[in-house]
Order: sequence, then C-alpha cells, then structure tokens
Amino acid sequence: MSKKIKVGVIGAGRIGKIHAQSVTYHIPEAEVKTIADVYADKIKDWAHSLGIENVTNDYHDILNDPEIDAVLICSSTDTHSQITIEAAKAGKHIFCEKPIDYDLDRIHAALKAVEEAGVKFQVGFNRRFDHNFKQVRELIKAGKIGEPHIIKITSRDPEPPPVEYVKVSGGIFLDMTIHDFDMARYLSGSEVEEVYAQGAVLVDPAIGEAGDVDTAVITLKFKNGAIGIIDNSRKAVYGYDQRVEVFGSKGCVTVSNDTPSSAVLSTVEGVMSEKPKYFFLERYMDSFVQEMKDFFDAIVNNKETPVTGIDGLKPVLIGLAAKKSLEEGRPVKVGQ
Amino acid sequence: MSKKIKVGVIGAGRIGKIHAQSVTYHIPEAEVKTIADVYADKIKDWAHSLGIENVTNDYHDILNDPEIDAVLICSSTDTHSQITIEAAKAGKHIFCEKPIDYDLDRIHAALKAVEEAGVKFQVGFNRRFDHNFKQVRELIKAGKIGEPHIIKITSRDPEPPPVEYVKVSGGIFLDMTIHDFDMARYLSGSEVEEVYAQGAVLVDPAIGEAGDVDTAVITLKFKNGAIGIIDNSRKAVYGYDQRVEVFGSKGCVTVSNDTPSSAVLSTVEGVMSEKPKYFFLERYMDSFVQEMKDFFDAIVNNKETPVTGIDGLKPVLIGLAAKKSLEEGRPVKVGQ
Amino acid sequence: MSKKIKVGVIGAGRIGKIHAQSVTYHIPEAEVKTIADVYADKIKDWAHSLGIENVTNDYHDILNDPEIDAVLICSSTDTHSQITIEAAKAGKHIFCEKPIDYDLDRIHAALKAVEEAGVKFQVGFNRRFDHNFKQVRELIKAGKIGEPHIIKITSRDPEPPPVEYVKVSGGIFLDMTIHDFDMARYLSGSEVEEVYAQGAVLVDPAIGEAGDVDTAVITLKFKNGAIGIIDNSRKAVYGYDQRVEVFGSKGCVTVSNDTPSSAVLSTVEGVMSEKPKYFFLERYMDSFVQEMKDFFDAIVNNKETPVTGIDGLKPVLIGLAAKKSLEEGRPVKVGQ
Amino acid sequence: MSKKIKVGVIGAGRIGKIHAQSVTYHIPEAEVKTIADVYADKIKDWAHSLGIENVTNDYHDILNDPEIDAVLICSSTDTHSQITIEAAKAGKHIFCEKPIDYDLDRIHAALKAVEEAGVKFQVGFNRRFDHNFKQVRELIKAGKIGEPHIIKITSRDPEPPPVEYVKVSGGIFLDMTIHDFDMARYLSGSEVEEVYAQGAVLVDPAIGEAGDVDTAVITLKFKNGAIGIIDNSRKAVYGYDQRVEVFGSKGCVTVSNDTPSSAVLSTVEGVMSEKPKYFFLERYMDSFVQEMKDFFDAIVNNKETPVTGIDGLKPVLIGLAAKKSLEEGRPVKVGQ
Repeated sequence: MSKKIKVGVIGAGRIGKIHAQSVTYHIPEAEVKTIADVYADKIKDWAHSLGIENVTNDYHDILNDPEIDAVLICSSTDTHSQITIEAAKAGKHIFCEKPIDYDLDRIHAALKAVEEAGVKFQVGFNRRFDHNFKQVRELIKAGKIGEPHIIKITSRDPEPPPVEYVKVSGGIFLDMTIHDFDMARYLSGSEVEEVYAQGAVLVDPAIGEAGDVDTAVITLKFKNGAIGIIDNSRKAVYGYDQRVEVFGSKGCVTVSNDTPSSAVLSTVEGVMSEKPKYFFLERYMDSFVQEMKDFFDAIVNNKETPVTGIDGLKPVLIGLAAKKSLEEGRPVKVGQ
Repeated sequence: MSKKIKVGVIGAGRIGKIHAQSVTYHIPEAEVKTIADVYADKIKDWAHSLGIENVTNDYHDILNDPEIDAVLICSSTDTHSQITIEAAKAGKHIFCEKPIDYDLDRIHAALKAVEEAGVKFQVGFNRRFDHNFKQVRELIKAGKIGEPHIIKITSRDPEPPPVEYVKVSGGIFLDMTIHDFDMARYLSGSEVEEVYAQGAVLVDPAIGEAGDVDTAVITLKFKNGAIGIIDNSRKAVYGYDQRVEVFGSKGCVTVSNDTPSSAVLSTVEGVMSEKPKYFFLERYMDSFVQEMKDFFDAIVNNKETPVTGIDGLKPVLIGLAAKKSLEEGRPVKVGQ
Repeated sequence: MSKKIKVGVIGAGRIGKIHAQSVTYHIPEAEVKTIADVYADKIKDWAHSLGIENVTNDYHDILNDPEIDAVLICSSTDTHSQITIEAAKAGKHIFCEKPIDYDLDRIHAALKAVEEAGVKFQVGFNRRFDHNFKQVRELIKAGKIGEPHIIKITSRDPEPPPVEYVKVSGGIFLDMTIHDFDMARYLSGSEVEEVYAQGAVLVDPAIGEAGDVDTAVITLKFKNGAIGIIDNSRKAVYGYDQRVEVFGSKGCVTVSNDTPSSAVLSTVEGVMSEKPKYFFLERYMDSFVQEMKDFFDAIVNNKETPVTGIDGLKPVLIGLAAKKSLEEGRPVKVGQ
Repeated sequence: MSKKIKVGVIGAGRIGKIHAQSVTYHIPEAEVKTIADVYADKIKDWAHSLGIENVTNDYHDILNDPEIDAVLICSSTDTHSQITIEAAKAGKHIFCEKPIDYDLDRIHAALKAVEEAGVKFQVGFNRRFDHNFKQVRELIKAGKIGEPHIIKITSRDPEPPPVEYVKVSGGIFLDMTIHDFDMARYLSGSEVEEVYAQGAVLVDPAIGEAGDVDTAVITLKFKNGAIGIIDNSRKAVYGYDQRVEVFGSKGCVTVSNDTPSSAVLSTVEGVMSEKPKYFFLERYMDSFVQEMKDFFDAIVNNKETPVTGIDGLKPVLIGLAAKKSLEEGRPVKVGQ
C-alpha cells in the first residue's frame, strides 16, 4: 500500500485525543489529516504538536473532504448516531465510540446507513482488546475450559462520576455496565436472553436522588445455557477493579487486576502489594491502541471489524432489559 | 473442672467418626463414653482403638445414661429433629449435624424442646470455623472493609454425588447451597430477605431427570442493604472450589483455595501450581476439630454456642425460598 | 501386628513433648510407655494427661526396660551421642534429635554403635517431611525440572535466640544453617563438596560479641555440578521465612511461605495479605508428626529410615567447613 | 523551550532503532535529525518511515553537524569509548549503550573527555528504569525495609547467545551479569567491595569450550555491610527470569516476573499461569523509553543524568573482579 489512509477525528475530548495519538504513533499505514471539535481553538497547539495540520469546528469539513477515508467519532454520545449516518452516506469508514445511542430507533437507523453504504463500522468496546480479557477469550475458544457454565464479571470504578453526569448518563446499566454486557457476550460467545438486576444506593445518596443506583448485581441467562453474573460498584476505594472468571465443563479461567509493579513488601505489619492501576486510562491504554490497529487492519485488508454494529446494539438491548428488571423487580427478556 | 465431660456419639458414619476422634485427641476436657450406631458390630474395633468402651445399636442407651452430659447427633438427616427433641428432654447438651430437618414444623419443635430444656445446642456448620472464612469474618467485624456492599461466595464440588443420593437430597439448595446460605449470614452479619435463584442442568442430564439442577447462581438481598451472590456447580474438574469475597465501603477481602503445597513449577509449558485440596475432608478437617472445641468451650464456660438453633433454621428458610424462586422464575421473600 | 511398639521418650522439653503427643495421637501402632526428664516432677501431670504411666528422672530406666522397643532422644544436644551409644547397645531403635553431636569423633562413635547393634536410627531433620519441601523433592525426583543447576534456600528466623544461647549454640552454621545444609542435600540428591560462607553482624552487636554472626550467605558446590545458595538471618521482622527454589535444565520449582489464612485485604492503603506463620512450631507442626509416622513405619516394616546416620553426619561436616570458610575468608572443601 | 533538541543516532542495530523510535514517538522536545550506520543503505526506508531525513554511513557527519545537540551511541561495543571521546570533544551530549568498554584505560579516557567537555553523559543501564525495579528502589529509599542486609538478584536468559557471540562477549560477567552488578549498586545504594564467583558449564559444553561458563552464582560484599547474591543462567526454559529481593532490618521487598496476561487456568491437570515475558525486548521495552525520557530531561533541565560515567565504570570493575575470582577460586577485592 503506497498511500496512507487519511483519517478525520470528530471530537477531541480525552478519548478523541487518545485515538489521534494512537493513529499518529502506532498506525504507520494511517495519518490524521483533520480534527474537528466545537472548541477548535483550544486544541490547535495540541494538534500541531502531533503534526495534524487541519483543525476545524465543523465536522462536515471532514465528511466533505474526499481525501479522507475514515472517521473516528469521539464526540458526545447524543451525536454518535447522527454523525454515523452522515459519515456512512459520505462513504467513510467509521470507528464510533460506545454507545451508538441510547435510542433503539436511532441505533437501527445508524446501522442501516452503514449497511447500505458498505463501509467498515467498529464500535469502541476497547476492553475486548485488553491483554487479559483477550487471553481469556482465546483460552475459551481453544476449548481449554470446555463448555462455559458460569461467567463472572467484576467491574468496579474507583470513584463515582459527578452527580450532574449521573443524571444524564442513561443510568448505571447503559453507562457503566454496558461494557460488562459486551464482555459477557465476548467471553461466552453466546447471546443474553434474560436479565435480572438488583441495585442499591450504598455509595452516595445523591446518586439515588438522581434516580440511579451505585451498586448493582446482574444475573444473565445465555442462549447456550450458561449463567452470567456481573457485579458493579461506583466506588472501590482500592482502585479500578476489573476481573473476570469463566467456569466450564473442563476448567476455569480467571484474570486478576493489573498493578503498577509486582513489588511485594513484607514488614511487621503484613505483606503488602500494589493496588490495581487507578482507572481506565492507566488500565486500558494499550487496548485503545490495539482497537485502532484492528480497525485499520480491517480497512486495509478488507476484513470484518472485530466489534460490529450488532455488537454495538446488543449491549444496549441488555442494558434496557436490566433497567426494566430493576424497576419491576423481576427477570426480563432481552429484546431483539 | 475436675471431671471430664462424658459424651455420647449417635451415628458413626464418616462425620460421626471424625467428631469422635476430635473429642478423643483434641478435647482434653471431654471423652466419648458411648457410641451408638445401627451397625454397632461394624464399628466396635474402631471404637476400641480410640479407647471408647461402649458401643450400642440403640441411641436410647446414651440418652438414658445419666453420666452422659452431651450428645453429638451424626445420624441420618431424617432422625436429627426427633433425636434432638429426645436428647433435650433428657437434659443433654446437643451438637447436631446440619440440617436440623427439611421440615419447618419439625425444626421449630426441635428448637422449642432445646429452649425449654435450657441445654446447649450447636448446629454443624463447620465452615464458620475454617481458618480462611474466620479471618474474613474477623476483618469485617474489625471494620476493615467498612459496610459490606457485595458478598460473593463460590462453592463448587469436585464431582456430583450419585444420582440416587440426589433424589433424596432435598435438592441442591438444601443439600449443598445450605452451607453457602449459612456463610452468607455469617459473613454479612445480616439476614437474607429475598432470594432469586437461577439453575441449569449442565453437568449431568441424570441430575435433571431426578428433578434437580447441578449448576446454580443465587442472588441474595440482605436486610442491611448488601447484595449477595452464590455460584454453585456440582462438578469443578480441578477440585473443591471454596472462595469468598466481601466488598464494602472501605475495601474488599477475598480468600482463595487451600492447596496441598505452595509449589510452583515453571517449565517450557507454563507455570503450574497445585489444584485445591480435593474435597471437604481434605479442606475442612481442621474446622471439624475447631467446631468441637468451641462446642465444649460453650458447655464448660456456659457461653452461647457459636452456631445456634436460629442459625440452623435460617439457611433452611433461605433454601426453601431459593427452591420456590427457581420453580417460579422470580425473586421470593424468605419466610420467618 | 498385634502388640503396640513401646516407646521411651528421653527429654521432655518442647520437642520431646511434641513427639510424645504425636505418638499418642497419631501413631496407632505405638504408645509411649515411659518418659524421662531431669525435672520429672514438673512433667507428671502433663504425662498423665496423655495417658503415659511412667515418669522418671533417669533415662536408664528406659534403656533397661526390656519391654521398650524404641527411644526418642530429645534431651540436650551434648547428651545425644552418648545416649545414642547406650540405647544402641541396649538394642533400642533410635530417633535422635538433630544434631547428633558437634564433635566428629563422637558422631562417628554413635553411628558405629548403631551399625553394630543393627537398630533403626533416624535423625530429626523434620523439614524433609514438610508438605512444601517434600513436594519440591518429588517434582525433582520425577524429573520435572531436569538436572538441578541452582539450588536456593532462604531461611530466616523471626527473632534471634537469647545471647546466652548463642554462646553455646555452636555458631549459626551448626545451630541454624544445619537444617539448610540438610535441605540442600535432600533437594539436590547430591553431596556438597565445597563451601564458601560470608557472614555479618547486622541484627544485634551482642551476637557479634558472642563470637557469632547473625546474617549469612553460603554458597555450595555440589558433586553433581550444581551450585547452591543459602541465605540466613536471625531476624526477619515479618516472621519465619522458609522458601526454596530449585532451577534446572527443564524448569524451576519454588515454594513460598505458609500463612495462617489466604485472606487478602484491599483498601485505600494497598493490598495486604498475611505474614508467614510465625515460627517453627506453627510452620512445621505437621512435619513433626510425619517424621514420627515414617520412623515407626521403618520399624514396623523393617525399612531404611528416611533420615539416616549419614544424613546426620553430613550437615555437621558442611557446617564445620562453613565455619572455617568464614574464619579464613576463602572457599573450603567439606571433610569426609 | 521553543526549539527541539536535534539528535544523532550512531548505530542502527536493534537497540539503535528502539531509541530512535522512542525519541520520535515519546520525546516531544527532541527529534532525530541524522542516523549513522555502516549499512546506511539498508536502513533508509525504516528511517524515512520515522520521518528521519538524513542517513549516513559515517558517524562523523553527525559529530560535525553543529545543529546536532546530542548523540545516542548504539554502535558495536568496541567503538563506544572512541566515539564517546570524539562526541565529547564535539560538545555533544552523550547517551552511550553499555558497556562503555571492557578496557579500563579506555573507559577512564572516555570519562575524562566527557568531564572536560562538560557534556551530559548517560550509560544505557535500562533496567533501572523498569517499573518493578524502580519501585523496589523507591521503597528502599523511603526506608520501608530499613537497612538492607541481603540483596538477591535472579537473572536468567531464555536461551544462550550463539557460541560465536560468546567468544567475543568478554565472558558472562561482563556481557550478562554486568546488568546485575549495576542493579546491585542501584538497589543497595552502596558500593561492592569484594566478589566471589562460582561458575559452571551446565547448559552447553560449547560455551565451556569457548572459555566461558553458562551458569554462575556471585556473592557480593557491600561497603555498607550488606551481602549480595546474583544467580545467572544462560538458559531458563520457561523464559526470561528477572527478579530481585532485598531483605533488611525492617522488612523485605520482592518483585516477580511480568507476564503477558494475568490469566490463570485451572483444569484437571493443575493450575496454570503464563510464563514470564519472553526476553528483554518484551520485558524491558517501557524502560528503554523511560531512559530516553530521563536523558532528555537531564539535558533540558540541566540535571545530572540518572546513570553517570561512574555508574558505567563500576560494573566493569566488579565484572573484572568476578572473572578473576572464578579463575582463582577465591574472593577478590573490586578495583577502583
């Protein structure tokens, strides 16, 4: 391939910047040509330091640029589906941050536009690209644990987001657990048919007042007969707790948290090791790079992307079922 | 105390023998005077090797012996409540293997008899005396994890019992999970209010044909707001899997499985450590001794026993609720 | 075997009591008939509580008792070789605490007496019977690590003995490292040919004034080409540190410390697990029982004992070479 | 700082390429202007893909370029000291791969040239920048283990280099252990006074025929009284084994190997985890980036480099002493 893939980044918040850097430093076959952000002025210096020439506050400049092959949609959630539709119509390959939308009709419209345009489409469920979870998936695919029977996912944040954020977040199931729903599908290789959610306000009453819960346990019934358990907390004082365990007919595989170092200190007070890496930036940085590599690999080699439109839709369906389950105090079937 | 406590053991199956040995070797203040078993002839040699003089096939010989202070009821489950009642009326202190009964009326009758007689009564939930779980409880009591939010119990057997046993076992919740229900109460220091059980037949279709499940996930709602999760399997090919995790406002405590040794072997094939201790005899032998020590300590020092009649009743109530939940596919309140 | 082996215990200090209990509770084929101690009066109650009838202050009462088959020599070190000689002449099987003696002539005399009498003789290197070290030896014997290349032994006490004891202890190499020299031979399956010892006084100057060191590193050259390393400290503030690692052509095996429980506590301050079991009584209690089992097994089934007279001699030879090495600041060959 | 530091890379073998990439992608304040390699033609494409414009086969083009501020000397070992002298005279800041030289006179000449020129000089002991070892050093500096008493370094390669390489490598102590000698100084914060080395040919007889050993154990005596132990093997079949342990008056700190993932697989065969990361490229990639960051930080902020000329000299002195010790079979003082 003689020519580099030209990329437009839409939205230069934290995650948009990370992706722009990944493309610049780790994807030799691609380069960011233009970056669009409503606060274009504020990101110019940063963009130039990466060698990105064009900065605009109108993402249409990217969509209208015939030289640009692919876009990374990193703007606010409420714009994802709309920009996806426009980008698809403009014939751009699309990497879209999760979730595509909270509204099922809008998700379907976006996926339809993608399908009609025949462009590549990948959703930003980065945890699939994490070295630990990937290894679990590989071991399962290799048959090392036989048929999966029980899938356990622990996912706890080090501290809750601001209550203002909680109010517009769509609720814990669509904001936080959605990653775990994706993980459940990824690890099990099966679809979730039914959900039962329990929730409680144990961390901060203000979260309850905002209509959400901060502690949750969700059980899942998979099509292949397996049972899943997710446990969430908005506040694990020891840091970001991200573990999974998959138990099956021939064995069990677990992964534990990554730590800044393997140092273990033994003193008269006890034996101490390090806390988990603090939060998702520390923990998942490598996975953000890897998902970009795989996205561009799908473009270059015309392969299916590793996280498709369906993979973007399904966790939203599970999340909506979980929400309903919590409201009604009973198990709820996942919609189609 | 100048005189040794005289003990009668009723039922000399596997667990009866273990308790008789514990008393003989580890409880200097007590001695087994008489042992009763329907197959008295078969256990004579064994009894004499322990220095136990009297062997009978009628447990009334124990209840009628005024010299005997305490009885250990280790006979078949269906006899527990009846013998408890008779022993209480005879004024004996009682250690009763779990469960007291599967029938609530009979349990209540037994507990009433115990109360009226004013004798000590302890139920054989031995896992409370295990070094690992005890340490978890101590840390929680010491406030090290703050308020408990999420309690997770993993309890998997290395292999299923014979299907003939499954048929009369009362079902997985009353036969196997009952230990975990007790553990949930012990660790949380709170009562279970509601149960939602999911179950599947993934290990052996014959277990399903016998009307039971072999894989189960049970979520618990505690009075103190915490949420509990128990996961069970009748067959973990790598051995007896007995772990807990309690997550709270100030931290999280976990215990892992005990292994025969700490040896770790690194070769070209990987890094290998030992499987968990095989089953409950290997895993919990020390806890069987410890529960005896605490039982006799309660007698000698006139203290409350560490596992009371209520502690015997509650897990049965939770088990019955779990059964109903599985049958009806919905969360069920635990009865009183 | 219809008749129980009658045992005499000589010396009822801490270790003598442990062995008497092991025989009473764990060796059905043996029983302690008589126990001898210079403070006979002080141990009577304890002896009777175990059901041991005879207590004497003259060990000759044991040697002269034709009913007694075996003796456990647990008296002070300076009496070991002499009593061994007398017991051998009296035709008793002998279990002798380590070391046989610090004087080579006296060791040789004792071993000669044993050989002439044809009695069983076992030296109390209990660590060979520890579940961890035994497993390492089994893995090596099974060829799992191929040919051993490097053998590392870490052996650190939680606190130094009283300086008065240090003065008469024979020095760290004969008092403390002697266990590690035995371990080195046991694990390697080879003899030590040369020793280089480095020592320092880093824990307590009083130990230096007593003519000893409290910190030591000893390298060993084995006949089979392997190299060994032992590191010792008289004071590990976190507790008894007892680990080994054996590296070979096909892999490496390590064992870590045993802990009171597997509890791991994660808080805002870090991830904490338990310190090692405090000292040798906590750590090695099971191994004391096991060495007794194997001793009586050797008698009953007329097998070689698992720790022979040569096994008692060799570590003393290595210890003397280490002493000389430290004094002369050079590697020293081990004598025959 | 408005202008970027211009860098010349001398030698574009494996390590030269890694450093050039680190500067390009991770050091915003620097850029590689020119790269020199005897096989200039072969690296042109690679250089251009990084945006490096100038490629030459004569490193004097770099030294003579007044625009270039700093050089990275990554050429073959025998050229390090000579190029260091020339670069110092040309007023360039110098990052020099280890070792500076095997010849003491040439090292001293290089250090003298650096001193006279007043340029920054850093030696490539990258392991000091590894997250694990750095954390050990931090804990020691923070007084967490008190005074260091025993320092243990395990350093084993996954496979031996070609025998042709062994012949010109300077021997295991100067080629491989030299990193461990540096680590010993780094961790202890003290100088090594005396060395005793034991070596054996246990991996490959051809290494012995080439006049070297492939297995070694080296004990070190530090100025501060501590004792050090290094164990080396040219072939650990399970991968690159890089661990340290520092034991002191108030505690002990250890680090274990990094693994590709934390996955643990339990099956009927045992409990398996991953082997260490394969070799230094996998294990130490982050440390290569970090040492560059610190080098340029020293230039930009006019600070002392973290690995000075003395730090480059001392390990060679220790290595030479170890060589002599092995040849003469006795402990040897380290020269000045």
